[in-house]
Amino acid sequence: MSERFAAVEIISAKRDKLELSNEQIEWTVDAYTRGVVADEQMSSLLMAILLNGMNDREISKWTDAMIASGEKMNWSMLDRLTVDKHSTGGVGDKITLPLAPLVAACGAAVPQLSGRGLGHTGGTLDKLESIKGWKANLSNTEMLKVIQECGAVICAAGAGLAPADKKLYALRDVTGTVEAIPLIASSIMSKKIAEGTSALVLDVKTGSGAFMSDPKNSALLARTMVNLGNAAGVKTRALVTAMDVPLGLTVGNALEIRETLEVLAGGGPSDVVELTLLLANEMLDAVGIKPKVSPADALKNGMAMDVWRKMISAQGGDNDAALAVAREKTEIKATASGKLLSMDAKKIGVAAWRLGAGRQKQGEAVQAGAGIEIHAKPGDLVVKDQTILTLHTDESNRFDRAVEALTGSFSIGGKDEVVQRLPLVIERIEG
Amino acid sequence: MSERFAAVEIISAKRDKLELSNEQIEWTVDAYTRGVVADEQMSSLLMAILLNGMNDREISKWTDAMIASGEKMNWSMLDRLTVDKHSTGGVGDKITLPLAPLVAACGAAVPQLSGRGLGHTGGTLDKLESIKGWKANLSNTEMLKVIQECGAVICAAGAGLAPADKKLYALRDVTGTVEAIPLIASSIMSKKIAEGTSALVLDVKTGSGAFMSDPKNSALLARTMVNLGNAAGVKTRALVTAMDVPLGLTVGNALEIRETLEVLAGGGPSDVVELTLLLANEMLDAVGIKPKVSPADALKNGMAMDVWRKMISAQGGDNDAALAVAREKTEIKATASGKLLSMDAKKIGVAAWRLGAGRQKQGEAVQAGAGIEIHAKPGDLVVKDQTILTLHTDESNRFDRAVEALTGSFSIGGKDEVVQRLPLVIERIEG
Repeated sequence: MSERFAAVEIISAKRDKLELSNEQIEWTVDAYTRGVVADEQMSSLLMAILLNGMNDREISKWTDAMIASGEKMNWSMLDRLTVDKHSTGGVGDKITLPLAPLVAACGAAVPQLSGRGLGHTGGTLDKLESIKGWKANLSNTEMLKVIQECGAVICAAGAGLAPADKKLYALRDVTGTVEAIPLIASSIMSKKIAEGTSALVLDVKTGSGAFMSDPKNSALLARTMVNLGNAAGVKTRALVTAMDVPLGLTVGNALEIRETLEVLAGGGPSDVVELTLLLANEMLDAVGIKPKVSPADALKNGMAMDVWRKMISAQGGDNDAALAVAREKTEIKATASGKLLSMDAKKIGVAAWRLGAGRQKQGEAVQAGAGIEIHAKPGDLVVKDQTILTLHTDESNRFDRAVEALTGSFSIGGKDEVVQRLPLVIERIEG
Repeated sequence: MSERFAAVEIISAKRDKLELSNEQIEWTVDAYTRGVVADEQMSSLLMAILLNGMNDREISKWTDAMIASGEKMNWSMLDRLTVDKHSTGGVGDKITLPLAPLVAACGAAVPQLSGRGLGHTGGTLDKLESIKGWKANLSNTEMLKVIQECGAVICAAGAGLAPADKKLYALRDVTGTVEAIPLIASSIMSKKIAEGTSALVLDVKTGSGAFMSDPKNSALLARTMVNLGNAAGVKTRALVTAMDVPLGLTVGNALEIRETLEVLAGGGPSDVVELTLLLANEMLDAVGIKPKVSPADALKNGMAMDVWRKMISAQGGDNDAALAVAREKTEIKATASGKLLSMDAKKIGVAAWRLGAGRQKQGEAVQAGAGIEIHAKPGDLVVKDQTILTLHTDESNRFDRAVEALTGSFSIGGKDEVVQRLPLVIERIEG
């Protein structure tokens, strides 16, 4: 078949700061999916996009083209409205886990297609897989059955959803082209729009533990995604939230499930509870549901826990099996008494990753029990030799590099010093 | 083996406008040659270099690393000093052909490693291969023998010379990363420095038929290369010369050999003769030879022709065999009487390419007889219906697309109108 365009022409146009036409963008994404545009051509174009940018029309067309590369899901057979949440990823960010059953308990349907961890931020599916028997991969029929029975489903996105994005994402990861707002926004939104949800709340993280540490860039990304979602008919809003300090008191797969169960039992760390409730209220409001029982009550009275147990069980998980515990542990202690002034999310994330909670390459296995327990957060008073962090792993030879990553990961100062940290919610963006 | 660097770190540094260290550059070029840095990583880095630039130190190190990827030739066993010429390529640019034997006739040794045509500019080896029996590929021993016997050799660069550049050049061609001065300069100079010549004269073309049409960019490229050569101990100078109009009166392989023979016989078009003599004088001056017979005299008295015939014959060529003539021809005539005001080198080059004189892809065969004869040049008075161009090809179905490329390729105006064209030499650059 003769091709409408040549890749070199399109690369050269973006290199020379020209706008790409709708036809050029459609062809590029399609031809890359078909293998006609080679990886080395696409990576060169991606770098030109990263450095020279795309305007709103180009980003929107690029997103459409990625959606068109695969199937689009449809939830119109459900008797409830669908709403979904997406986080750009952070250290200790297990919010999806209590949030999906909670919002389902309040009356919405939550089809939560999730991913695996790569790098220092964890993946929702990796966390759930530390529950004995739980399976991430469902057919469309199985997915529909779980959501009809439980109101929520958390599972892996099928290969049919935005396959262009999957191929592009793997390429960006090895070619230094991850950090481009047009590419991040179109990658996230193509999957979320193809997923067919009617409303969407984005949790855009900012700070050392997020992949964007400048709140201005995070807000620009959030606004770009909110515009893409609303233009595609998905009621979309975003919160820009703090990721300078890890969320909650656990980082790691089984450790974060344990904390999730605490939250669903009406307890848990205050920051996790607060963010879960904030996002639950945004989701219900976005989809236009005024719940009979408020999210705060649904956490306290066990309704959210009931949905969770049903959902885990429907996907083969054993709610009563003991969670994995790592074979080895070691403690990091306070070297002085005083006030804990800071705790660096990135360093904690990298250490948990090195302990075996995350993977270096796609396809690698993760350790269910590996990770870090946090015993004090910024603002807390600590005494010398008190344990600040407990490190868990199955392989004790991993401790050295994890401890190395933790150099300067927290600081202790005088009791009267002021803690400098981001507020939990930095900005709220609506279409 | 564990690697010193990760490709993504180096791509990200250049993306973020940081300078690359000498160690990073050495590793990148070496790891790409070894296949550790993948094509899609290198093309992303090349685009970042194209858009964010490299400073003089980085360009010099990149060039050194490409030289280090292969062998370096040595001509110290010769009893004459070596000097070489390189042209960045133009339409009808056959200057190497009369120049190498001429400079050898005047007392220098000329080891001229040449290339094949790609795109609308021809290749010296393709032109010589239209001589019956002539062979481009010589072993190092054969090359040495030809230069010892004749004073000059024109042949293909062996695969051992700057292999990193060969791999990079093929990649740049398909990824929109050809047009970067640091990459062009390092590509040319790595080969020329590895070739081991003691002096070098660069003919940097500018105008529509060159790959750079802005004289300022061409001068910047020339200066970058002159600095690289002198830093590496090669006495290097450059002329920036006109390529708005084709050189001479022929474009195509056997057609250009015919014109070369005219020049070596003391005749030929004035622009070809003038540029050949200018470059010969620069080459002899650069290498410090004061010839007993001037280049102008060596062309007139047959000394240059004698070297040419010896050199062709030493490489298996039959000096007395008839040159190929294409099977089909057609003429483009003047539509009015008046003065020929312009002739676009690019359009003539593209037409000759479409007639079969050049190739679309590396490895394709070219037609020896295909090309264009030019019967009038800008400034000449012409009469209506006079032939301006004769098109030659073995396949008459090629005429349509060639004629299409020639739309607006020349213009005729009143006899008193002034011809706007570049002077033959625009700038001379010395270290």
